[in-house]
Amino acid sequence: MKYPIITLLLSIFSFGQVQKEQLNLMPWPKEIKVNSGNFILNKDFKININGASSDRVYKAASKFLRRLDGRTGTFFNQGFITQNNEFPGANFQISVKNVASLNLNRDESYQLSVSEDKINLTANTDIGAIYGLETLLQLLQNNSKTYYFPLISINDNPRFKWRGLMIDAARRFQPIEVIKRNLDAMAAVKMNVFHWHLVDDQGWRIEMKNLKQLHEKASDGLYYTQEEIKNVVKYASDLGIMVVPEIDVPGHASAILTAFPEIGSTPNFKYSVERNAGIFTPTLDPSNPKTYTILEKIFDEVCPLFPSDIFHIGGDENEGKEWDANPKIQEFKKSKNLKTNHDLQTYFTMKLVPMLKKHHKKLMGWEEIMTNEMSKEAIIHAWKGPNEGKPAGESLAQAAKNGYKTVLSNGFYIDLVLGVENHYLTEPINEKFNLNKSEIENILGGEATMWSELASPLTIDSRIWPRTAAIAERLWSDVSVKDVKDMKRRLSSVSVRLEELGITHLRNKGVILRNISNNQNTSAVEEFSKICEPLKLYSRNKGGTEYQMYSPLTLFADACTPDASDAVLFNDLVNEFTNNKTNETVKSQILEFLKKWKNNHSELVKLNENAPIIGSFLPLSKSLNDISTQLIYKLENNSNYNPELANKLWIECNSKEYADVELGIAESLKKLITFI
Amino acid sequence: MKYPIITLLLSIFSFGQVQKEQLNLMPWPKEIKVNSGNFILNKDFKININGASSDRVYKAASKFLRRLDGRTGTFFNQGFITQNNEFPGANFQISVKNVASLNLNRDESYQLSVSEDKINLTANTDIGAIYGLETLLQLLQNNSKTYYFPLISINDNPRFKWRGLMIDAARRFQPIEVIKRNLDAMAAVKMNVFHWHLVDDQGWRIEMKNLKQLHEKASDGLYYTQEEIKNVVKYASDLGIMVVPEIDVPGHASAILTAFPEIGSTPNFKYSVERNAGIFTPTLDPSNPKTYTILEKIFDEVCPLFPSDIFHIGGDENEGKEWDANPKIQEFKKSKNLKTNHDLQTYFTMKLVPMLKKHHKKLMGWEEIMTNEMSKEAIIHAWKGPNEGKPAGESLAQAAKNGYKTVLSNGFYIDLVLGVENHYLTEPINEKFNLNKSEIENILGGEATMWSELASPLTIDSRIWPRTAAIAERLWSDVSVKDVKDMKRRLSSVSVRLEELGITHLRNKGVILRNISNNQNTSAVEEFSKICEPLKLYSRNKGGTEYQMYSPLTLFADACTPDASDAVLFNDLVNEFTNNKTNETVKSQILEFLKKWKNNHSELVKLNENAPIIGSFLPLSKSLNDISTQLIYKLENNSNYNPELANKLWIECNSKEYADVELGIAESLKKLITFI
Repeated sequence: MKYPIITLLLSIFSFGQVQKEQLNLMPWPKEIKVNSGNFILNKDFKININGASSDRVYKAASKFLRRLDGRTGTFFNQGFITQNNEFPGANFQISVKNVASLNLNRDESYQLSVSEDKINLTANTDIGAIYGLETLLQLLQNNSKTYYFPLISINDNPRFKWRGLMIDAARRFQPIEVIKRNLDAMAAVKMNVFHWHLVDDQGWRIEMKNLKQLHEKASDGLYYTQEEIKNVVKYASDLGIMVVPEIDVPGHASAILTAFPEIGSTPNFKYSVERNAGIFTPTLDPSNPKTYTILEKIFDEVCPLFPSDIFHIGGDENEGKEWDANPKIQEFKKSKNLKTNHDLQTYFTMKLVPMLKKHHKKLMGWEEIMTNEMSKEAIIHAWKGPNEGKPAGESLAQAAKNGYKTVLSNGFYIDLVLGVENHYLTEPINEKFNLNKSEIENILGGEATMWSELASPLTIDSRIWPRTAAIAERLWSDVSVKDVKDMKRRLSSVSVRLEELGITHLRNKGVILRNISNNQNTSAVEEFSKICEPLKLYSRNKGGTEYQMYSPLTLFADACTPDASDAVLFNDLVNEFTNNKTNETVKSQILEFLKKWKNNHSELVKLNENAPIIGSFLPLSKSLNDISTQLIYKLENNSNYNPELANKLWIECNSKEYADVELGIAESLKKLITFI
Repeated sequence: MKYPIITLLLSIFSFGQVQKEQLNLMPWPKEIKVNSGNFILNKDFKININGASSDRVYKAASKFLRRLDGRTGTFFNQGFITQNNEFPGANFQISVKNVASLNLNRDESYQLSVSEDKINLTANTDIGAIYGLETLLQLLQNNSKTYYFPLISINDNPRFKWRGLMIDAARRFQPIEVIKRNLDAMAAVKMNVFHWHLVDDQGWRIEMKNLKQLHEKASDGLYYTQEEIKNVVKYASDLGIMVVPEIDVPGHASAILTAFPEIGSTPNFKYSVERNAGIFTPTLDPSNPKTYTILEKIFDEVCPLFPSDIFHIGGDENEGKEWDANPKIQEFKKSKNLKTNHDLQTYFTMKLVPMLKKHHKKLMGWEEIMTNEMSKEAIIHAWKGPNEGKPAGESLAQAAKNGYKTVLSNGFYIDLVLGVENHYLTEPINEKFNLNKSEIENILGGEATMWSELASPLTIDSRIWPRTAAIAERLWSDVSVKDVKDMKRRLSSVSVRLEELGITHLRNKGVILRNISNNQNTSAVEEFSKICEPLKLYSRNKGGTEYQMYSPLTLFADACTPDASDAVLFNDLVNEFTNNKTNETVKSQILEFLKKWKNNHSELVKLNENAPIIGSFLPLSKSLNDISTQLIYKLENNSNYNPELANKLWIECNSKEYADVELGIAESLKKLITFI
């Protein structure tokens, strides 16, 4: 009976040597060295913290234990960590030199080394240490019986200071739990600025003690209390995240003007909270002294809620229509020697600088605030690009050259629902603009922007994640880290791990599918959703009036996401096949897909009998069914193939008329018709 | 070309006549009459409210529109309803006579009538009206193209006044969003009392302004702020739900005594927050005047947070061990002429009555508070039953006979994870106790109790729902409504609809399955979970020390639920087959299941190669695989069938040793071995 036991032991303790290329780290660290051997995880795993006493690290380390426990089912004995040096002999030692202040100049570096019986994490600041914990979690490996960490040494530090995510809680209100889980997810990929878009045409979202009209008249009861805001700011701080609030002025002002119509640019106009999407005319009156009185009161109340030294005042998309139509404002412009509405807006914005300075805050605004007269202390948020008729990266380069600190969002507009590689390959320092060293230093980093016209609490996570992790890597890792295929491999691991932080991008898809399947089996709709993507580049919700901001988003397009999984697979296959038409394996895989979609269509037809919403995308599935029939003929050299019909069917497959989705495989179908 | 158009119209507008028996109403209404014809839903659907102006109805009606919209994708124009009589011509008219006060004597009745072009909902109170809205939502029907309501008239009213759900937020903290979504779900099945268990050995969960030690020392930072509590109370009130808080004294006191050891019954003992599950000794000292000083301060601060006129003081499971061990307390007992510890506890509890009365609150406690000296104004919460060595329903009957108002929880302990029929068939008015009319009137109703030793925010919904909807029906509907099969049919519809309120019982299962499958395909684990149920009757977490209260619950047992879907189907099949062994259809369905489980086992083996947690239940799947082989032999009359081996394998299939689950089909497997 000796042999079986030895074999068992060998099988338990046989670990494949992990290669650096197999690790699921994201963002990829600066320096990383993998050694042979492993640190095996068991119930005695224990953490000891020493150096600077930091609540931030205590909390992160306690949560680290629970997350590791949840993944492995180890049930560690160690509970809440609340003090330094409790277990000097622990096999995981964390050393922190200083407690960081939450500003852009904090040290975020850390060093992590794993040997067979000891893990050491050292950092200059507690924020560096909490990043090291995230890296360690991503290093977890397993065989069939055991969990372990590979022996490794990592030295890490970010490339950019500003790695942000903006969430628009104004258009569609996003409750506190949405914000908190997204903060957790941000920290998991080492992002450090949460930009909270709190005010827009569609709502004012801050409880006001002195100007109650704002939340009472312009929020539909959907706002954050001041206690909740402080609570979020503290929660973010514990994760090393700075919160930058935004109150968008002087345009996007329907909500503010619903509460205070007297400071609007159209006299005696009955402003109301906007229900649709788009760019609207309501604008504050820059010639009215009361505008500034009210704004000062607002800043006096809102600034103290946010310890960050930066305040975002919006400033975008003011087309000046109300100003043009009001002779009094035009007269005022003339009297101040201001040539354009743009100059008038700068006059307005410059009045806000001292209001913010009083609270030790720098002004930040969207790129429209950048004119000759704008203070060089302002931070320019670059957002325009090819969609707005500007070359990509130009505004950012311009701001940097003009001597402004600047943050890039063009290229990181995740609400465009483009494929992840579009964002991943957006490089903030664009060589074509020939920036010098000090100009490059003006580029603080970048920020993913999640506008919420088409994102509700149910769906917003699936619009942000996992894609934003790729943006986080662009902003943290070396410029040379840009292999899209490898990024996608790592992203798939990050995606599932985000669930432990409460991110709902995967789970809520099932909710929508069950809803539209009317409590029938969802597998056919799910299959179809794997090749459908929501309409891109703001082509959904035409004219901004198909849905209102209070309309639920529970339809097929809301269950679909960019980077649809089967579409990605099929497109790869078709590319391979067009490169090598003799590859029979690939050909048979393509045929399998085509047959699956045919079969799936008949399932959808049956499902539709008791689920009307299925009918909204059934014509698209029908077109796919029909073109699949043709392509099967073609690939199987069946004489029934009808190229003319195939071309006609392809046009139908390329339709964007059904259920606000498009087939993510349309181009590949075209290739199969054309190039095979 | 005329005919096709007519056919099309006919097919669009052909509606099957709905029978009363097909409706998915739960709880089933008092009187219901279905007429032929339908009210067809379209974009012009509009609500008008008249009568008493009620914020509660405005909110419920606005949300009704969004929920109906989310199900149908109709995109109604009507947004937020904020005033009476806005659209006098609307096709849905709601009339409310009075705004209800939140007490047990409110009128909860409503009348609903649907004709082809008009819906009328009338109610004496706004709470009745919001119940009517829930009924209407449950009435929604569809064919393949259209949504509609059947023509119907309903007259409804509950049987019991108290239809409660208790959530234990003390053992495992349950964040605000967990509470809010469960309140929404309660309202959807017309439940009206939320009993919030806020204090126990494992934690104090209320922010205190005057006795900060309580939340600072005894909550691990996991507590509700007073603002959050007020917010929940308001949220509940909008749903017609009364909130009854519980501070459990004098036992279950580890948390209180962590903050105030000086009022504990063991002098100089260093009390600490309990991390395990079980019954613990820490108890307040009833002989110490400071105990009452502190309790009075607590009630003075906590009572005003809860407008309800009832306050639950726990009082359960004080075994008096600390009292017995303390001579000073025994002396005190003697000096007060109190014979038993039970009498001493009554002395203690009676001191709380005036403290609560000061705040206009009646005292409620678990049944242990019922002694001869207990005030008849107290409400007795009956919880003991066969599990505790008492006949079912006896304590409730006793309390009613003793002249106490009383609420039943025995039979409604949903944390026992029993099948839903166990709770559904628990009838509060048990004939065997021969209660007279006034005694019956003492029975206020019942309450489902969700203790949280084994329920985290991730899993708690799946322990509460959908089962609690069956309890809600028991407490609302006529005693004659008790067809288990029909209840299960309706429950399946309620289950999916709970998702629109944020209930996570279905979606979070996927989260756990993805976690334990280690980002591989989850279908094999999901299959297996359809026949596995978590260990019942508190047999999981042996000794209360396998897990701690901070341990995550992310393993296979946490993904499993009672009433496992395939187990229910298979058990029905086997019952049918044992009744009629010549039924070949049933036999082949049974064979299909057995073959599926064999195939699934090999999938699990493969999955386990890269997912250690799968290994924890693999032996159970192996036993099922092996017994399936034998049973296939048996059913196919194959001579390889080995009855001895089958019996041996069955013992293994009946094991409760793996991964804290049991096979929900074990009894059926036994029947196949024995009776076929």
